[in-house]
Amino acid sequence: MPDYRAPLRDIRFVMHELLQAERHYRNLHGCEKPTPDLLDAILQSAGKFAENVIAPLNRSGDEQGCRYHAGRVTTPDGFRAAFAEYARGGWQALSVPTAEGGQGLPASCSTAVGELLGSANYAWSMIGGLAQAPINLLLAAGSARQKATYLPRLLSGDWAGTMCLTEPHCGSDVGLVRTRAVRNADGSYAISGTKIFISGGEQDITENIIHTVLARIEGAPGGTAGISLFVVPKILVAEDGSPGAANTLSCGAIENKMGLKGSPTCVMHFDGATGFLLGEENGGLDIMFRLMNTARLGTALQGVSMGEAAFQGALDYARERLQMRSLSGPKNPAGPADPIIVHPDVRRMLLTQKALTEGSRALVYWLAQLVDTSSHGPAQEAAQAGALLSLLTPIAKAFCTETGFEVTSLGVQVFGGHGYIREHGMEQLLRDSRIAMLYEGTTGIQSLDLLGRKVMGSQGKLLAHVTGLIHRFCTTHDGHSAMAEFIEPLAALNCQWGELTTAIGTRARRDPEEIGAASVDYTLYAGYVVLAYLWARMARVALQALAQDDAGEAGFYRAKLTTARFYYARLLPRATAHARAAEAGADTLMAMPERDFWY
Amino acid sequence: MPDYRAPLRDIRFVMHELLQAERHYRNLHGCEKPTPDLLDAILQSAGKFAENVIAPLNRSGDEQGCRYHAGRVTTPDGFRAAFAEYARGGWQALSVPTAEGGQGLPASCSTAVGELLGSANYAWSMIGGLAQAPINLLLAAGSARQKATYLPRLLSGDWAGTMCLTEPHCGSDVGLVRTRAVRNADGSYAISGTKIFISGGEQDITENIIHTVLARIEGAPGGTAGISLFVVPKILVAEDGSPGAANTLSCGAIENKMGLKGSPTCVMHFDGATGFLLGEENGGLDIMFRLMNTARLGTALQGVSMGEAAFQGALDYARERLQMRSLSGPKNPAGPADPIIVHPDVRRMLLTQKALTEGSRALVYWLAQLVDTSSHGPAQEAAQAGALLSLLTPIAKAFCTETGFEVTSLGVQVFGGHGYIREHGMEQLLRDSRIAMLYEGTTGIQSLDLLGRKVMGSQGKLLAHVTGLIHRFCTTHDGHSAMAEFIEPLAALNCQWGELTTAIGTRARRDPEEIGAASVDYTLYAGYVVLAYLWARMARVALQALAQDDAGEAGFYRAKLTTARFYYARLLPRATAHARAAEAGADTLMAMPERDFWY
Repeated sequence: MPDYRAPLRDIRFVMHELLQAERHYRNLHGCEKPTPDLLDAILQSAGKFAENVIAPLNRSGDEQGCRYHAGRVTTPDGFRAAFAEYARGGWQALSVPTAEGGQGLPASCSTAVGELLGSANYAWSMIGGLAQAPINLLLAAGSARQKATYLPRLLSGDWAGTMCLTEPHCGSDVGLVRTRAVRNADGSYAISGTKIFISGGEQDITENIIHTVLARIEGAPGGTAGISLFVVPKILVAEDGSPGAANTLSCGAIENKMGLKGSPTCVMHFDGATGFLLGEENGGLDIMFRLMNTARLGTALQGVSMGEAAFQGALDYARERLQMRSLSGPKNPAGPADPIIVHPDVRRMLLTQKALTEGSRALVYWLAQLVDTSSHGPAQEAAQAGALLSLLTPIAKAFCTETGFEVTSLGVQVFGGHGYIREHGMEQLLRDSRIAMLYEGTTGIQSLDLLGRKVMGSQGKLLAHVTGLIHRFCTTHDGHSAMAEFIEPLAALNCQWGELTTAIGTRARRDPEEIGAASVDYTLYAGYVVLAYLWARMARVALQALAQDDAGEAGFYRAKLTTARFYYARLLPRATAHARAAEAGADTLMAMPERDFWY
Repeated sequence: MPDYRAPLRDIRFVMHELLQAERHYRNLHGCEKPTPDLLDAILQSAGKFAENVIAPLNRSGDEQGCRYHAGRVTTPDGFRAAFAEYARGGWQALSVPTAEGGQGLPASCSTAVGELLGSANYAWSMIGGLAQAPINLLLAAGSARQKATYLPRLLSGDWAGTMCLTEPHCGSDVGLVRTRAVRNADGSYAISGTKIFISGGEQDITENIIHTVLARIEGAPGGTAGISLFVVPKILVAEDGSPGAANTLSCGAIENKMGLKGSPTCVMHFDGATGFLLGEENGGLDIMFRLMNTARLGTALQGVSMGEAAFQGALDYARERLQMRSLSGPKNPAGPADPIIVHPDVRRMLLTQKALTEGSRALVYWLAQLVDTSSHGPAQEAAQAGALLSLLTPIAKAFCTETGFEVTSLGVQVFGGHGYIREHGMEQLLRDSRIAMLYEGTTGIQSLDLLGRKVMGSQGKLLAHVTGLIHRFCTTHDGHSAMAEFIEPLAALNCQWGELTTAIGTRARRDPEEIGAASVDYTLYAGYVVLAYLWARMARVALQALAQDDAGEAGFYRAKLTTARFYYARLLPRATAHARAAEAGADTLMAMPERDFWY
């Protein structure tokens, strides 16, 4: 496993220099406002924990995996102790309001922490994440009594939780949920059904597991309108908060997965289990959808986390591995060969990793700030942030996970054959990252949400928020000669984005299949353009810093500028390929009768 | 694991209708000329063996893997018996000259067999492939006595073999080989050194293993000029052919790999092992390189094999899985939801798989015919075939393995979360296919070979063979209205190929790094253009067949035509993105000092 080093310099660049964290937090109300010193202490502390405590458990966690026996799940050695240390550190409550017993920091403060933990050991980091579903759902819709019963011990890390949505016959199509809820005389419900793909459905790390379960109350309408949300604890909690009887639910099996083997993915059986309604009857999906942006951003962040780990591994190897001579003459004449980082194609791979990972980091951290602003900003800014988030979240989820997978695969490629064996940890990163394009809504589902619900559903209004922002950035830098290499192509692509949307919209009025036909290529196009916008902004910051010769770190800023140029020259041309595919229309997709796909 | 079905209809289309096998074989001399009936019998028989004998061992082979204990390797249950059945069928000798005890069929006859076996169980199929290295090297450079000693039992399948090239410190850079050979008094050599990544270096399937080993004879020149090739049997063979003493070599470990777990990848220690020189002293790499095209084509074929298996799995699932309604109205109103194949984005994924896999099949089978022609064709055609092969082989290796990996990843994606778990076999295909971009020369190595050695090394002459062929095809169909949708973009891209090459060549005269900087994007560009050429040819065949309403199979031919259109509309735009990246130059790659890659 490569030695992971928390990329604090780049995170600080994104938070402070690009996104001006100090000004951002000063603008918020109704939450704690972290000072730069506090942010720094959080980053330092999370970085050390990631590097020293959980990174060393990443390979052993993958090799050992989770084991299932008679309803019990054993997680890899060391996971439980590391979680206890993490919980003692108070990390679970970082972004929970002080009134609810948390530390009250804005949501974005958890983003860097999430990145660091995820790079070091994604499987382990999911355990911490598992409490977030019930915490957030309780905060969003729990009664005072429900919050009092469950929140304190979720926040302390004594308990964790799950989100139980998927069933064997229904994943993306939530309206097909069959799990039943029958009203009990005492106001609780008896929940019966089978849920699959439940991360942490059973584990040996916390004393109790607070499941949140989507189910249909007897007599509820069909489809998505009849789904309610329930809190279903593994161990029932007595009035005084002490542990009661075991609930009638069980883990039937764990999945044998491609990766994330340290995180148990469970089949859960609910056999008349006692559940408590969260919010209104039949209002389950509304609550869920309100929190979906957070979950999607968390998954986009997985792309950044795993990309950073793969980039670091590949870079270390490229500096050490001696193989062949530079085409422009030996660079290591005393050695038997040159380090492979001298070869332009190895640099192409490393710079692709760097440009996509740092660009995706900027995107996800920006959206995390928008989450803060949408909840705690001044009214007008909050509305604007909400609009941007609604459009940019599916783009970030799709783009950062797809490119995150590409980056981990490049990590394998830089190692040559050595990338394919377990020893160096690169193949694990590839396996672990592959899930991110699937869970929390596949790339296809994100893309339908973006193009169908958001872009077309708002008649282009939501899109105008984003293209308007990019347009204003371009206009502001019009005539700025050092920025011209970025502004000119960015302005052209931003313009093309509008035209592409209009063209698809026109066709979609005649044939609704046009939306699905264009959606994924449209979303990836959008991703490349949004990253181009962020790379232009980062180039701008770097140019300013270089003009001031800021803190003697010219190398760092020159690297930013070179990476921005690399992104524009070598990766951004993909945007046009996606645009051409997106505008190709539905005909070539729909023309083939199903029976003719294979003979 | 998806049920594998040998795609005989498409293979026949490629061999007979696209590549006119009957005429091709009639033109050859110095080999057997298979009749259509014989070819068909071979396909049928190999298809049944693949479907019924080895496909059922694919998942269990992955789960069980190979086990190592004290120098011995145990392969998965059933592998040995299946290989015995395969060997009894005479498959190992299919393309070996009759004078050497084989069946004398041209090399291309083995291609379809290789595809079928590889789709069904790639790990298993490597065992059969392992005898090919010593067989081919003996045929190319063995003395009469060496051939008499080793060939019969390699052809019978009693023995298998290996190719021992890589060492811990040297993979692509063969000139760094350290394994030593010391002359013995009897004319043999004592071989000492460690080789890694040796497929089948030790196994429990055959009685003996004939290693072929690259080593440096004492006093030989450094670098690639001083490398010799040796036959090093695991068990020495007495004069009368009976088994002699065990040689002083051993398997020290097997690698724990991402995939292909049924095929043992061994660390081999040679401790003064007795070896016999193949060919001339210091001539080892010449012999190896003569056979390298075959090995690369075999790896390109892996992309086709695994792509076909992933496509079949995804297609079956897309027909069965019910999830959400078609945007243009229910297609399965009686059911709870529509099969996901109605959704345009699912079709986009399936058609991407289909277009890349069938296109790559056409490419590899075409190159296999060129191998026949280069050895057994009339002189002028043989020279032309050799020129085409020399240019097209690195393109095929790079393109078919990169897109093969994309196709297996799409297979996972069509399954959603179910693609990530072992049960459906899709994640295994992804893991198994990832190695193909690495072994037999990484994509980067193929690309340097293509652009540096072949294209620039011949001052564009080799390239002119390919672009000339495409140009003639376009000219021939000039004014053919039904073909215009293909011919116009193809002619433009073919033209651009020349211009792109000239632009890179001009820059490379000033800076040799320009070759490496452009190489991989150049190669993928070339791959997309060559596939466009083949899809245009396939469309032409389909149009002809539809005009004749051939054999009532209009659906098959219409599907070919639709897939060609899909390829041109949705995948070919990637060519332009690669061209733009390839012409972006070395500056953005080389500008960054090594220390600035990460802060």
